[in-house]
Amino acid sequence: MGAAQVLVVAGTHGNERNAPWLLEHWLAHPGALDSSGLGLQLVIGNPAAFAAGRRYLDRDLNRSFTSALLEAPGPADREVQRARELLALHGPAGTQPCALVLDLHSTTAAMGNSLVVYGRRPADLALAAGIQALLGLPIYLHEDDANQQGFLLECWPCGLVIEVGPVPQGVVNSAICHQTQRALEAALMVLASARRGDLALPRGLTVHRHLGSLDLPRRPDGRPAACLHPLRQHRDWQAIFPGDPLFVTAGGETLRYESADPGPLWPVFINEAAYGEKGIALSLTSRERWPCESDWAEGLHQLAKQLMAAPG
Amino acid sequence: MGAAQVLVVAGTHGNERNAPWLLEHWLAHPGALDSSGLGLQLVIGNPAAFAAGRRYLDRDLNRSFTSALLEAPGPADREVQRARELLALHGPAGTQPCALVLDLHSTTAAMGNSLVVYGRRPADLALAAGIQALLGLPIYLHEDDANQQGFLLECWPCGLVIEVGPVPQGVVNSAICHQTQRALEAALMVLASARRGDLALPRGLTVHRHLGSLDLPRRPDGRPAACLHPLRQHRDWQAIFPGDPLFVTAGGETLRYESADPGPLWPVFINEAAYGEKGIALSLTSRERWPCESDWAEGLHQLAKQLMAAPG
Repeated sequence: MGAAQVLVVAGTHGNERNAPWLLEHWLAHPGALDSSGLGLQLVIGNPAAFAAGRRYLDRDLNRSFTSALLEAPGPADREVQRARELLALHGPAGTQPCALVLDLHSTTAAMGNSLVVYGRRPADLALAAGIQALLGLPIYLHEDDANQQGFLLECWPCGLVIEVGPVPQGVVNSAICHQTQRALEAALMVLASARRGDLALPRGLTVHRHLGSLDLPRRPDGRPAACLHPLRQHRDWQAIFPGDPLFVTAGGETLRYESADPGPLWPVFINEAAYGEKGIALSLTSRERWPCESDWAEGLHQLAKQLMAAPG
Repeated sequence: MGAAQVLVVAGTHGNERNAPWLLEHWLAHPGALDSSGLGLQLVIGNPAAFAAGRRYLDRDLNRSFTSALLEAPGPADREVQRARELLALHGPAGTQPCALVLDLHSTTAAMGNSLVVYGRRPADLALAAGIQALLGLPIYLHEDDANQQGFLLECWPCGLVIEVGPVPQGVVNSAICHQTQRALEAALMVLASARRGDLALPRGLTVHRHLGSLDLPRRPDGRPAACLHPLRQHRDWQAIFPGDPLFVTAGGETLRYESADPGPLWPVFINEAAYGEKGIALSLTSRERWPCESDWAEGLHQLAKQLMAAPG
């Protein structure tokens, strides 16, 4: 077995307080998190933003892991400095190397307990499929969006986001914490199995594949002209068909979802507070059932066999 | 009739987005708000904080209306400057004088559609009783708390807060907006009746009288040692008895509500995101039924007869 660890990040966004609340407890009481025997690095992603109670100080840390930003010469803002620091410490070639990363987030959207995977790396898909087989969590597969780049976990060869909601920014909610811990422990159980080489994936996994995002309707000056329709609010993962209510103006006019395709799509991240500034009122996905490929488990095994056991 | 107007404030806290969303619409479409024929001043309380998407910039505007801050010599921070400006413009002796104020807030706590009254001014109690008779809204009577002073509406001879939740900071939710408008229109209906002199109050009103606030249990260094218990989260206005679960540690230990008094109290503002920094995990109230006093309606009538009709 190797000498790499599993990186567990909480507070990549400083106003998402639930995972940092857990992480502080796990640091003080290592037995409180069932790591399935794996060695972990438990890290607050953005400590300065966490201290300030803000998502970020200069720039969204979870959009700062682009090669353009990481390699830019000259002075860098605080989040880019932190991104470089995280890689120098815990990157695959860092001083405390981590072979993969589990990034713990919360959202104001009613996502429940869910996973976000970025792209189609076999090891990521094996990990997600293994967790889904244990807990049934829905998976949002994010890919091919030129407007959303530079996610933290893309700088590690494997990783995923555990995303739990709804919970307001700045609030610790015990039920949200419980769900977060359940998902993390399931991920570690899958990784331990992959490390041993006995991971048996299910026959298939269900993904919600990112197709694009919708902004609120806006006026010429950029101000929103409508908000989410009450029949769409809190309905993450639920099918939307052309003609369904989508937005409503302040005057009460319903704006409907329009599409030439008569089939349903599945919205996620509906009315996430932090996405207003990104021009995202919700994202649209296609619900797809994929067979688990034979090389996925092998890809995760190759990574996981680098993992060291927990000390003690 | 007189020449004063009703001041309606939205966005006293810049990250409470629902009332400003409505207010912008009412400014563009005055017919969209049933003002019961009263002249209104519609104002964003803290425009700079609203533009920044933050509760406040330097200091909570809704704790800045103390005479000590308003009258202090020398340079003032941005919220104190704004407090002075609001009074100079729309105070009872301002250039566009307002006889009373309705201050529209939202909260991450599950307060539903509710009213907050500060102290026991007869006109305030008449207004609250009249709204409760129309819509049945619960009333939180805040008084005698040396740690919480300087509320905006205390600088007007009459006024109350309309408080609606739960909604995350930074989120516009159509249902929250709808509730806010319903409560505001009911308030204006009561004021119009008081102006005509035909306000008939109910025989009594139910108030939840503020007794004090509880902070989270804290470690010696000030960090929280527990969070709200899941059986208490979202249970605003619901009775708590000694021995009921109140907090839970990250390790799962339940901390119970302790009191020598065996009777119930009624918690409000449970786990409001903005109150963490104030050391308030929830506030405790006594549910009381008060007879409406004969001088309340007269007090509101004396104020309301100063009100001018809406132009047009």
